[in-house]
Amino acid sequence: MASAPSTDNPQPGNTPANEEGSESGGISKKQAKKEAMKAEKLRKKQEAAAATNTASQIESLELDPRADDFGDIPMDELQSKAVSGREWTTIGSLNSELADRTVLLRGNAQTIRPVSKKMAFLVVRQSMSTVQCVLTVGKDYGSPQMVKFATGLSRESIVDIEGIVSIPKDPIKGATQQVEIQVRKLYCVNRAVPNLPINLEDAARSEREFEKAEATGEQLVRVGQDTRLNYRVLDLRTPANQATFRIQCYVEDMFRLFLRRENFVGIHTPKLIAGSSEGGSAVFKLDYKGQPACLAQSPQLYKQMAICGGFERVFEVGSVFRAEDSYTHRHLCEFVGLDAEMEIKEHYDEVMDLVDRLFVTMFDYLNENCKKELEAIDRQYPFEPLKYLRKTLRLTFKEGVEMLKEAGLEVDPLGDLNTESERKLGRLVFDKYGTEFYILHRYPLAVRPFYTMPCPDDPAYSNSFDVFIRGEEIISGAQRIHIPELLTSRAEACGIDLKTISTYIDSFRYGAPPHGGFGVGLERVVMLFCALNNIRKTSLFPRDPQRLVP
Amino acid sequence: MASAPSTDNPQPGNTPANEEGSESGGISKKQAKKEAMKAEKLRKKQEAAAATNTASQIESLELDPRADDFGDIPMDELQSKAVSGREWTTIGSLNSELADRTVLLRGNAQTIRPVSKKMAFLVVRQSMSTVQCVLTVGKDYGSPQMVKFATGLSRESIVDIEGIVSIPKDPIKGATQQVEIQVRKLYCVNRAVPNLPINLEDAARSEREFEKAEATGEQLVRVGQDTRLNYRVLDLRTPANQATFRIQCYVEDMFRLFLRRENFVGIHTPKLIAGSSEGGSAVFKLDYKGQPACLAQSPQLYKQMAICGGFERVFEVGSVFRAEDSYTHRHLCEFVGLDAEMEIKEHYDEVMDLVDRLFVTMFDYLNENCKKELEAIDRQYPFEPLKYLRKTLRLTFKEGVEMLKEAGLEVDPLGDLNTESERKLGRLVFDKYGTEFYILHRYPLAVRPFYTMPCPDDPAYSNSFDVFIRGEEIISGAQRIHIPELLTSRAEACGIDLKTISTYIDSFRYGAPPHGGFGVGLERVVMLFCALNNIRKTSLFPRDPQRLVP
Repeated sequence: MASAPSTDNPQPGNTPANEEGSESGGISKKQAKKEAMKAEKLRKKQEAAAATNTASQIESLELDPRADDFGDIPMDELQSKAVSGREWTTIGSLNSELADRTVLLRGNAQTIRPVSKKMAFLVVRQSMSTVQCVLTVGKDYGSPQMVKFATGLSRESIVDIEGIVSIPKDPIKGATQQVEIQVRKLYCVNRAVPNLPINLEDAARSEREFEKAEATGEQLVRVGQDTRLNYRVLDLRTPANQATFRIQCYVEDMFRLFLRRENFVGIHTPKLIAGSSEGGSAVFKLDYKGQPACLAQSPQLYKQMAICGGFERVFEVGSVFRAEDSYTHRHLCEFVGLDAEMEIKEHYDEVMDLVDRLFVTMFDYLNENCKKELEAIDRQYPFEPLKYLRKTLRLTFKEGVEMLKEAGLEVDPLGDLNTESERKLGRLVFDKYGTEFYILHRYPLAVRPFYTMPCPDDPAYSNSFDVFIRGEEIISGAQRIHIPELLTSRAEACGIDLKTISTYIDSFRYGAPPHGGFGVGLERVVMLFCALNNIRKTSLFPRDPQRLVP
Repeated sequence: MASAPSTDNPQPGNTPANEEGSESGGISKKQAKKEAMKAEKLRKKQEAAAATNTASQIESLELDPRADDFGDIPMDELQSKAVSGREWTTIGSLNSELADRTVLLRGNAQTIRPVSKKMAFLVVRQSMSTVQCVLTVGKDYGSPQMVKFATGLSRESIVDIEGIVSIPKDPIKGATQQVEIQVRKLYCVNRAVPNLPINLEDAARSEREFEKAEATGEQLVRVGQDTRLNYRVLDLRTPANQATFRIQCYVEDMFRLFLRRENFVGIHTPKLIAGSSEGGSAVFKLDYKGQPACLAQSPQLYKQMAICGGFERVFEVGSVFRAEDSYTHRHLCEFVGLDAEMEIKEHYDEVMDLVDRLFVTMFDYLNENCKKELEAIDRQYPFEPLKYLRKTLRLTFKEGVEMLKEAGLEVDPLGDLNTESERKLGRLVFDKYGTEFYILHRYPLAVRPFYTMPCPDDPAYSNSFDVFIRGEEIISGAQRIHIPELLTSRAEACGIDLKTISTYIDSFRYGAPPHGGFGVGLERVVMLFCALNNIRKTSLFPRDPQRLVP
């Protein structure tokens, strides 16, 4: 059963325009204030309405012999009053093997469809799973009042349902589980406001539907990125978002498990640091008990110090802060860095080998174990699975420049690639090698951070690499300078204030092994693996230059 | 062979006093500057000495037919010049099965002991493992120049050693591995300055040795906590520190693995937030693109919002910032929070059950799988293994107060316990129940944060708990308020500015399930499990009100 699209009540904050693809993530403060005021007014009105609603229901309950089988759970019972020992079933585990069994479920009332005074359908959702629940009036169960109570519930309210699992004749289209629940008891745990700022059906609508609608001229409500983020707790309930953040967690699982198996030690380095992190202006500054401090732009210096501290191989999953004024689809002011650093015996190949194996293992894992999640994303945001080779392609920067040149693009052989060149190169590499995941190494020294080791044969180049997915840079890595004198001169050449990094440089004076490593943004991995078009889709509560709430 | 204690060269920064147990973690700026200047002077002197040393060695090399078998590796060879394909053996894997095999090792030259012009011993270390290497002059190998080169190396320099594994007659005391390496080739990868600011032997000395010395009147150098932290990359190389941070990583592994198996989703919430986090003055403030912002004091509000977002069960491992002026042994300005939040069906017992199982599983794991690490810590800082029950003891706050009263301690039945009462109660509980790990629940509402759910039968108490290890509070948890009206009134009653948490409160208007959770500091878990006396021992680069570097 497909749920009826809600057409009544224009949703505040929903814009029918095509705001989705917008590069800027923010709205003006004035707009935000206005919207907030509007939302507050609406909320008060809704609350008043909900209160009346409940009161009238309670009245009708008194006449009903089934009155104990439904209603709002009193507050004190939700305050840990007692432990009943009842057994709960998860909606995701409901299947035909449970036929005729009585189960107890809790979830959000996603859709509520009255059929008659004696019948109604409820679709109840628990994270990524939904089940259709049927309310009817029988000899020993149900009542018109109970049906009325159900149809009076606001969407997204939390409900407890006790019912019997049954197998429907026809396949169920409007829910993930292929069984129905014949409702015997229905209690409301927590009521949602009657008019939600986002309609979940709109928020979960597939891009394919929008395409179809465009062709037929049908008008569909599109929930813009800003509205989604303003009401993120609702937006997060869509199947695509539930899937996205579960995939994000798997990515971190695999990063951690893979590196642990390779004898890396997980560490945590300070985010509050003196000086200006790795230089540059894009740092958040703050006062630390009277001392000037800033937020770490990466764990770079500290993970290297951990190597000097004798840990051989370390990794960190942690917050990274960038105060850049970047309004692109791929920049955030705060993100989660996946960083690794390791001793190298002879060559930065050792780091690239690790990156290669780590990411191929990770992609394989996601493709094999996250089918449900990937499908959920694909249903809303259709995408092609990432194409990657068993052994990751490596090209030198020079070779990349050559390929671009041959294709008629003029690029500075000792400069950096801009976004356009990177995308172009991605297409050329795909056409030639059939992969959307590859490593470009031996970057010009001038475009890399001061701690990057120059090439032994040509100091204009460096022992560094970037890794690309679908034409976008995702990982940066390199061999680092472990010789304090060279490090000092490179820092000076790059205009770094030596005073601010003296303890870092000193770390290399006590016996420092050659080492290298890499860093990658967790949100970018998920975004590019799933071909999502905006990094705000892969950050739970994103931070960009204009967004600090929620 | 025990290595000879270094008595020459007074070590800058080493104080013979008992600075170790000091509560304050900082030194004055003036002192720090003076120390830095001293260190800089010393460094320059050392570098000059090292340069001369190398030059004189190179001279002598020229006359030696074995000259190719030792020396400093030229810089370009350490810049990823080539891949030799040689196989490296880790020091930790060296055992008698490898007897007579030629192996290639890299590590720090921990101790260097000349015996004669034709013989020297080197103990080489790789993370937690050490091996004794023997340099001799034979017919086909070694030379007096090579021995001279070895004994001229500064301690902690990185060396590559090629040699043959041999089994010594007597057990080796001065190294972890019970084999010796007969050195054939010896190269220096990176030289440490000749005089290190910390002598590793001093830094690794056992408290048992200090006790013995005190009894005999012997003077031993004790490296103070501040000196350790000033030269943290050296301090981290001690076996106890190597072990501590490996255990920390295992704690995080277990936290994650356990919760993943229980269907929790790992999330990352923003650290940059508007307003003042959970209230209180202990926040770091900063300017966020013109907006006032602060650093999150915990992921509390956001992990609850993730629950409202439909994730059912979430956890986070992430940085937590507290600007408190706390100079105690257990407070840091930045630490790693292990947080979890979950829907609860009926009772906050469900959260306590999870905490119980999680930590018993974790402690079991550490005791079974980290024997080597726990022994390393015990060797330097002797401690008794934690005593805990298979099923964790739960007492109500009232029962705790009663026990303290019976023991003659007067405590406010509706106030909080101070550190002294907590310790006392820890001893009473241990005497009565034989456990150093227990849960105290139903705290007075007045001493808990605004979002804590009051008890259903007595609003003076709350559905909250603390967990104690060895008499110190380590975990805080509770059922949270999921009803926006109650949440609003509790926030107001606690003096929270509602404007700063409006998006948080609004999150509960869209259908919010009852839920609860807990938070614990990673550093405290490790500190108290291992009975260490200062949290600075379990933070890689600790931050306290006076320490922002390194």
